[in-house]
Amino acid sequence: MTTATLDVTAIGNAIVDIIGRCDDAFLSTHQCPKGHMRLVDAPTIQALYAGMGPAVEISGGSAANTAVGIASFGGKAGFIGKIADDEFGRIFAHDIKASKVAFSAAAVGGGTPTSRSLILVTPDGERTMNTLLGISTELGDAELDADLIRAAKVLYLEGYLFDRPEAKAAFRKAVAIAKSAGRDVALSLSDGFCVDRHRDEFKSLIADGVDIVFANEAEIISLYQTTDFDTAASQAAKAMKMAVLTRGAKGSLLLAGSQKVAVPVEAVAQVVDSTGAGDLYAAGFLYGITHGADLAAAGRFGSIAAAEIISHTGARPETSLASLSKNR
Amino acid sequence: MTTATLDVTAIGNAIVDIIGRCDDAFLSTHQCPKGHMRLVDAPTIQALYAGMGPAVEISGGSAANTAVGIASFGGKAGFIGKIADDEFGRIFAHDIKASKVAFSAAAVGGGTPTSRSLILVTPDGERTMNTLLGISTELGDAELDADLIRAAKVLYLEGYLFDRPEAKAAFRKAVAIAKSAGRDVALSLSDGFCVDRHRDEFKSLIADGVDIVFANEAEIISLYQTTDFDTAASQAAKAMKMAVLTRGAKGSLLLAGSQKVAVPVEAVAQVVDSTGAGDLYAAGFLYGITHGADLAAAGRFGSIAAAEIISHTGARPETSLASLSKNR
Repeated sequence: MTTATLDVTAIGNAIVDIIGRCDDAFLSTHQCPKGHMRLVDAPTIQALYAGMGPAVEISGGSAANTAVGIASFGGKAGFIGKIADDEFGRIFAHDIKASKVAFSAAAVGGGTPTSRSLILVTPDGERTMNTLLGISTELGDAELDADLIRAAKVLYLEGYLFDRPEAKAAFRKAVAIAKSAGRDVALSLSDGFCVDRHRDEFKSLIADGVDIVFANEAEIISLYQTTDFDTAASQAAKAMKMAVLTRGAKGSLLLAGSQKVAVPVEAVAQVVDSTGAGDLYAAGFLYGITHGADLAAAGRFGSIAAAEIISHTGARPETSLASLSKNR
Repeated sequence: MTTATLDVTAIGNAIVDIIGRCDDAFLSTHQCPKGHMRLVDAPTIQALYAGMGPAVEISGGSAANTAVGIASFGGKAGFIGKIADDEFGRIFAHDIKASKVAFSAAAVGGGTPTSRSLILVTPDGERTMNTLLGISTELGDAELDADLIRAAKVLYLEGYLFDRPEAKAAFRKAVAIAKSAGRDVALSLSDGFCVDRHRDEFKSLIADGVDIVFANEAEIISLYQTTDFDTAASQAAKAMKMAVLTRGAKGSLLLAGSQKVAVPVEAVAQVVDSTGAGDLYAAGFLYGITHGADLAAAGRFGSIAAAEIISHTGARPETSLASLSKNR
């Protein structure tokens, strides 16, 4: 086992977010499941875009946000994801490289565009996502940069990619590469509906080599098909080496063997846009555990990063998380 | 003279802003004149983009920002500008229409891209702009929508467009259309260096039919080739029917005939990004005078709008200016 040169390599969708505001009625009219992500085709995303208010474009993607967050803490991160040779691909590549994340993917020609997600933010700050089935969802074996995976202490997998069979197979292969190099593997369950669609395969992947599972309440409840968070958490404690369960305003619960740590949220003046809250919590937590922090301290890094991201529009930090965490 | 159905129709560059942060040394290294706009070619903008930090993309364009600001106050605005058939063109068109501004331009094919401006924001909140010579700078006679010009009480012209002879000619024609319909004409001088390049032609246009001139300190000083604001303001009072002179933190000075009104700035907790301060001041002022406000009240609308825009990244309002102005 060679010494790792990176803290975390993340695999996920390479996405540019198009973030605008709407009211709850708009979500109902367009049948967008509030608080969730759904994959949509080009005509659907065009109809939504035409109907929504003015927007801003900011690089996103769940695992990519996490990688950028780790770099903002001063950690070393890599990212594997697929972009097309178009404006949104250039925006994504620029932003992630400018954030000091190792990213070497070549842009893919052929007409399938870079993925984008229309993110509708309601007055309560909740985000609802409509993601175009673009090139990033076509990630497969060929995109796995084995050197980048082996270079990192932790391989971090984005559950959203599970909707395509090629990506599931690629995840299995990525886990094998990481394990053979003696690395840990982390998995984000990403979305409750996504867990619904792929419950058994998620469980199987977790049993076969995932060291850290990130889930919010909806996701862990869906995984264990219960309606009660505590029941789901008990199941997670038994089935997972380490479970990182985020609970919105209720903070987070960290489970590892016999350890059970509840972490409160950091205060936020106003929740402007919750996009990226889970991604940035994961960034702080992973930065912490790859830098010798115990569970409670790692959870606190997560809470600090989540608090920064929900205080403004977009899922990329506007303030250095390294300086934020030093000042608290 | 028919009744106007719009308050203001603006003519200017149709631009998507790419806004990122940098330090003063970066501006020096890349020879960007701090606080100003310069037109750059594709290789220059690519080199700057490669070197700068992560960015966000938000629709911009000086006069377009003003039109959106007027709409945010509840006024009725139109915009004339040129976009290409590309991603940035679609972003610009979506955002301005979604902001309830009348905009009917067809996207132009042929390879010249939609204009974009790399906006570098330094830690003091000052913005320095590098604008690609894209399709918007090719505005000419053909783009003038005479009905849209005649429909508005005020025609508002963006001085940045003066760098191309075709646009100068188009401005002359637009003024003639507006005047023949009994409308007023407003002109923004846009940039001190721009005034340097076209001083005599700006003076000539002002003498030939401009009713309201918007200028900041650098611009009015450049127009009258003095180093002293008060001297320049005296000259402006003689040469212009109405001069709206913005002075950053010192507020604004409004001159019309024998009237002279000084307007203080609205308090801002922190200047995050000064992009659009002048554009939004103009929005508030024009909304005011097209809704029966006197000079002082119109200036106050301008100050409220400028305060909103400098408190966040980007030059499009994040909060309804109508509600902001009612609550103060």
